[in-house]
Amino acid sequence: DSKLKIFTCNSNPKLAHQIADYIGIPMGESHTTSFSDGEIQVKLSESVRGCHVYIIQSTCLPVNDNLMELLVMVDALKRASAKSINVVIPYYGYARQDRKARSRDPITAKLVANLIETAGAHRVITMDLHAMQIQGFFDIPVDHLLGVPILAQYFRSKQIENPVIVSPDHGGVVRARKLADFLNAPLAIIDKRRPEPNVSEVMNIIGNIEGKTAIIIDDIIDTAGTIVLGANALKEGGVKEVYACCTHPVLSGPAMERLENAPLKEVVVTDTIPIVHPNPTSKLKVLSVAPLMGEAIIRVHEELSISKLFEIE
Amino acid sequence: DSKLKIFTCNSNPKLAHQIADYIGIPMGESHTTSFSDGEIQVKLSESVRGCHVYIIQSTCLPVNDNLMELLVMVDALKRASAKSINVVIPYYGYARQDRKARSRDPITAKLVANLIETAGAHRVITMDLHAMQIQGFFDIPVDHLLGVPILAQYFRSKQIENPVIVSPDHGGVVRARKLADFLNAPLAIIDKRRPEPNVSEVMNIIGNIEGKTAIIIDDIIDTAGTIVLGANALKEGGVKEVYACCTHPVLSGPAMERLENAPLKEVVVTDTIPIVHPNPTSKLKVLSVAPLMGEAIIRVHEELSISKLFEIE
Ligand SMILES: Nc1ncnc2c1ncn2[C@@H]1O[C@H](COP(=O)(O)O)[C@@H](O)[C@H]1O
Ligand SMILES: Nc1ncnc2c1ncn2[C@@H]1O[C@H](COP(=O)(O)O)[C@@H](O)[C@H]1O
Repeated sequence: DSKLKIFTCNSNPKLAHQIADYIGIPMGESHTTSFSDGEIQVKLSESVRGCHVYIIQSTCLPVNDNLMELLVMVDALKRASAKSINVVIPYYGYARQDRKARSRDPITAKLVANLIETAGAHRVITMDLHAMQIQGFFDIPVDHLLGVPILAQYFRSKQIENPVIVSPDHGGVVRARKLADFLNAPLAIIDKRRPEPNVSEVMNIIGNIEGKTAIIIDDIIDTAGTIVLGANALKEGGVKEVYACCTHPVLSGPAMERLENAPLKEVVVTDTIPIVHPNPTSKLKVLSVAPLMGEAIIRVHEELSISKLFEIE
Repeated sequence: DSKLKIFTCNSNPKLAHQIADYIGIPMGESHTTSFSDGEIQVKLSESVRGCHVYIIQSTCLPVNDNLMELLVMVDALKRASAKSINVVIPYYGYARQDRKARSRDPITAKLVANLIETAGAHRVITMDLHAMQIQGFFDIPVDHLLGVPILAQYFRSKQIENPVIVSPDHGGVVRARKLADFLNAPLAIIDKRRPEPNVSEVMNIIGNIEGKTAIIIDDIIDTAGTIVLGANALKEGGVKEVYACCTHPVLSGPAMERLENAPLKEVVVTDTIPIVHPNPTSKLKVLSVAPLMGEAIIRVHEELSISKLFEIE
């Protein structure tokens, strides 16, 4: 029996159900709750013996609880004799702690990779890692999906006239380049510079933007500071309208209010992270990654079944 | 340089400072905070290169945050070239998930042990593990301290007349036996039995308690259900007064109110877990484990320094 089963914890049940629907199988029955003292309890209500299981869990806020839920779930599946344990992490938290930016910094993105492997995962499926290097933090296979095609398809359908794709910083140029290729549009880059310490940043725009409709693209919108500063600089630089888009809407702290008040026409995101704000801005447009994730799971599962033909058992 | 340094995160800073005071060294300078999206950030403000470091952190509520703080701190110390990383976990959370009580249960106490080793810890110092078997979940040395002597010393100083030590269940008899030995007192056991499913438990007391002062001892008081049922049964059985004691005051959910309203004279606990309830009952008496923990650290550190004499470098 090499059945495919899908489980989820509590970070993003809506996306998990949509993925299961896309694949056309019911969600595996499990209950991830907390004891009175906050310790996580995972109950698997069906057998997984010999099955290829996929756990769908983003490590978004509350990040430590969501990560621990994932690890305990992996442990439970391992001890229940699942044949392979594939963790699907639409949003990989701690990705920005991927290097020693200052001396004595931890490298938590690597720690998390080690924790996931230690728990017993055999494969990771994830999306738009903040740095591609994080794939190398794992010693198990990583399937890395991209959000740009989903965002591009949406903007193409809007038939925006005279667009320019804008990277909010030098780190995001490769991503912006991809979107520009998809939309056959020119590229601009916001070049932040702090002339002296304790003097505020100067936003210099590289590229021609005047009279165009700007589409700023980033991987994560967290507190929205970067996007809002960028939108203001673009407006001052003479663009007609500004759209913002990203894969992972972390939207912590003042993000929602900032987006509401910024000169932004629309903020296009995906559902790797659920929007939990009680009063989200009407500018938000959420695109689903469920078909992409579902397709990835189907392909990985076929591959597993194919490789099974060559297995000696 | 084989200096001893002590660090702490956010679970129990008061105990950590008392331990540093006992040892007679200043607390190592570090800052464990959260980013806007809840991700933990650890900053070490001093060098640990070549040092033997001790991190004091209980994994009590919020257990997943406290555990992750510990793991990130270990990662930071490892990458900052600490010579040895010793984690001091006065209260080890998830200890009750130490076996498959039901099929397909995770064994989270083992998972946590693996996570701590994976992060890079070289040694664990802990206290009154819910099950002694948890020591075997680690492949690194575990120093296991006992709370009974601290509790015994307190009760001895109170000179309680005609005491009887009570174990609230069969699992706690060894611990109760130790306290009884220290106090030279007889032992009784509460024998819970459910005559039929869905019929409430019958509390049967094994041992002579009539007219005596009972001291119930457990490792953990969590929701206080067990202790309160026990105290009521003892009262009905004819004891004069009831004291309760434990090492780890988890005190989650309704615990504080239950203790306040139960026929308990005093509830004696230690400071492995800080009391965070805004309105703690006046029955609580908190004893410090700082001298015990401090002594353990000093002895381990001496041992390390001694073994250093035989090291080839
Ligand atoms: N959750 C977080 N929120 C804000 N900043 C972070 C977070 N995690 C890491 N960082 C910081 O962000 C920087 C890395 O971001 P980047 O330069 O965009 O790769 C480092 O200085 C980190 O200390
Ligand atoms: N944090 C917790 N709170 C309450 N019960 C728990 C907790 N962790 C584990 N358990 C349960 O407690 C039982 C083990 O307790 P014990 O029999 O005292 O060793 C198991 O049935 C566990 O499912």
